[in-house]
Amino acid sequence: MAWAAETLFLMAPPLLVTFAAGLSGVWRIDRIEAVIGSGLLPAARLAVFEGSGHPGPATWVLRGVTSNTRYTQRQELDTLATRQEALGRPHATRAALIPIRKTDAWWALAQDERRAIFEDRSRHIGVGLEYLPAVARRLHHCRDLGEPFDFLTWFEYAPEDAGAFEELVRRLRQTEEWRYVDREIDIRLTRA
Amino acid sequence: MAWAAETLFLMAPPLLVTFAAGLSGVWRIDRIEAVIGSGLLPAARLAVFEGSGHPGPATWVLRGVTSNTRYTQRQELDTLATRQEALGRPHATRAALIPIRKTDAWWALAQDERRAIFEDRSRHIGVGLEYLPAVARRLHHCRDLGEPFDFLTWFEYAPEDAGAFEELVRRLRQTEEWRYVDREIDIRLTRA
Repeated sequence: MAWAAETLFLMAPPLLVTFAAGLSGVWRIDRIEAVIGSGLLPAARLAVFEGSGHPGPATWVLRGVTSNTRYTQRQELDTLATRQEALGRPHATRAALIPIRKTDAWWALAQDERRAIFEDRSRHIGVGLEYLPAVARRLHHCRDLGEPFDFLTWFEYAPEDAGAFEELVRRLRQTEEWRYVDREIDIRLTRA
Repeated sequence: MAWAAETLFLMAPPLLVTFAAGLSGVWRIDRIEAVIGSGLLPAARLAVFEGSGHPGPATWVLRGVTSNTRYTQRQELDTLATRQEALGRPHATRAALIPIRKTDAWWALAQDERRAIFEDRSRHIGVGLEYLPAVARRLHHCRDLGEPFDFLTWFEYAPEDAGAFEELVRRLRQTEEWRYVDREIDIRLTRA
């Protein structure tokens, strides 16, 4: 299978990623919108550090870890591997950072109950697949790090795909899964 | 359901737990055995800190986080909630701390593949249930914390249940799941 190596790559060891908002960084912050719950302070730029790099003074800092998949089944993983593209594509000059936190009720559900809501009824993976390869995406887990959010999802896309990205976000927010989101912030950025 | 509250309790927010081996702590270390891979330095005592408590000088320190279940289905969760007992029972004066790390091949598997190995074929939950309520257990996740192990499991049992506990550990080590363990240390303790 040509994709075996790529799938393994997707499952690389956890990588700590730090998002630091402030005066420096290659991403210009266009807007920060509190979608559900309290927001984050405004800032001009966002710097993204991979590994144990320490950001300097910052308006706010969010940290997350890329990790193993939690819901994705083999067939879905193989389909994702054939369609999704890496971060850092030169034409993908727009980005979104969407931190979310889920409710205690979500985390009290069993694995099969969460999978049923996540994919069988909300089609989180299936809907996301429709926007590949235009939208590249990386998920960072942070609930176990004691952070204020449970997940930080980072998206990159070209300006001409901005409409498609808005549609993707709108569709996900209408799902049953999103009823378990009790804090969400939508941060939009442009590569400076 | 009488168990709903208990199930919610099991799914409490992640708790950081620090295991510090050295000269102090309520647990006397009886032995440290490297089962698979490299071991840990010997020490006299083990202290267990919950939350952000900072251990003093230590021979070694391992950290993990209690988290949401990753494989357990609703029916299994309900059965566990009816049978398992909490840590700290006065008669449970023996303990085991078993840090394990799983292979890259394990983490590259999809969720359905890991569940199939974990329970359908290895009966990890089913075997464990046979030893309840004698053996109390708490699982700590540490892969995403950048720790040297992926999991730290803490067990407590009475001296008269030591034979049953040995059997439990022996049975789990014979499973297909354990072929994906590439480092395991077995630390046995007695409350001092």
